[in-house]
Amino acid sequence: MSSSTTIRLAEPSDAAAIAAILLPTIREGATYALDADMSEADALAYWLAPDKDTFVLEEDGAIVGTYYLRTNQLGGGRHVCNCGYMTSLKATGRGIARRMCEHSQEVARSKGYRAMQFNFVVSANERAVKLWQALGFEIVGRLPLAFLHPTRGYVDALTMFKTL
Amino acid sequence: MSSSTTIRLAEPSDAAAIAAILLPTIREGATYALDADMSEADALAYWLAPDKDTFVLEEDGAIVGTYYLRTNQLGGGRHVCNCGYMTSLKATGRGIARRMCEHSQEVARSKGYRAMQFNFVVSANERAVKLWQALGFEIVGRLPLAFLHPTRGYVDALTMFKTL
Repeated sequence: MSSSTTIRLAEPSDAAAIAAILLPTIREGATYALDADMSEADALAYWLAPDKDTFVLEEDGAIVGTYYLRTNQLGGGRHVCNCGYMTSLKATGRGIARRMCEHSQEVARSKGYRAMQFNFVVSANERAVKLWQALGFEIVGRLPLAFLHPTRGYVDALTMFKTL
Repeated sequence: MSSSTTIRLAEPSDAAAIAAILLPTIREGATYALDADMSEADALAYWLAPDKDTFVLEEDGAIVGTYYLRTNQLGGGRHVCNCGYMTSLKATGRGIARRMCEHSQEVARSKGYRAMQFNFVVSANERAVKLWQALGFEIVGRLPLAFLHPTRGYVDALTMFKTL
C-alpha cells in the first residue's frame, strides 16, 4: 500500500466518488445482493444509510475504496456488526479491501462490538472468501443456491463470522 | 386446530390485535432480535412494512397469530423469501405457528420463491427450532453467541433454510 493511503469517514462531498465505485459493481450483479439496475440515488441512499458509518479509502488523494459498518441485528443481536466493502474496479488486487477490513475491525472494537458478520458472501467470489478467511473470518453458514449469479447460475451464499 | 381457523392478509383495522401479539414477545426479548423497549408504533411499522406481506390467523374470530413474508435479499437473492411468525402467548402449543408456516410456504410457492430462509433463529428457542426442522427446514448456519438472551446470556443464533 502507498504510504499516502488514508481511511476516513465519508463526507457528503464524496458522494460522486463513492457512486463511481458502487455502480460498476452493482451493475455487474455478481457480488452484492442488490438490484443490478438500482439507481445511483438508491445506491447512495443504501450505502450512506443513517444506520451505517461509511468510510472511504484515499490513495494519493483519490477515493478508490469505500466501506460501511452497521449494527447487524437489534435487541439481543446488537453486539454483532456487519460491513460491506467495495473497491474501485481499477484498483483491485492491491490490498485495498484487506486494508479496509482491518480498519473496520479496529473501528468495530472501538465501538464495543464483540463480533463481525458478513451475511451474504457470494461463494463464486472466491477472492473475497479467501481474503476474509485470511483475515480470520470463518464460514459459519452456507445458503444453498441462494444467489443467482449473472454467468454461473445459482450458487451458494456464505455467512462469515469473526469474534473480535 | 379449530375448524373455524382462517389465515388472511392483515388489514389496517387489525393493528391493535397484531400489536397485542407482538408486544409481549418483543418485551420478553428472548426470540426476536428487536429492541425490547421498541414502541408499539415502531413494532407495527416493522411488522407491517411495505416490503412485507403480513397475514393474521383467526381462531373463532379472534386473531391469535400473525406472520410476514418478504423477499430476503435483492438482486441475485430475490428468489429466497424470509418469514417471521408470532403467536399470542395465550395460544401457544396449539399448532398455530405450524399452521402459519405451512400457509407461508404455500404463499411463497405461489409467488414463485424457490426457497425460504430464517436468518436468525435463537438457538435457545428450542421449540421453534424443532418445529422448523419438523417442517423441513435445515440448520445451514450457526452464528456463535450472536444473541444475548435475557436469562441465558450469549447463545448461538441459527440460520435455517428450506428449498420449496
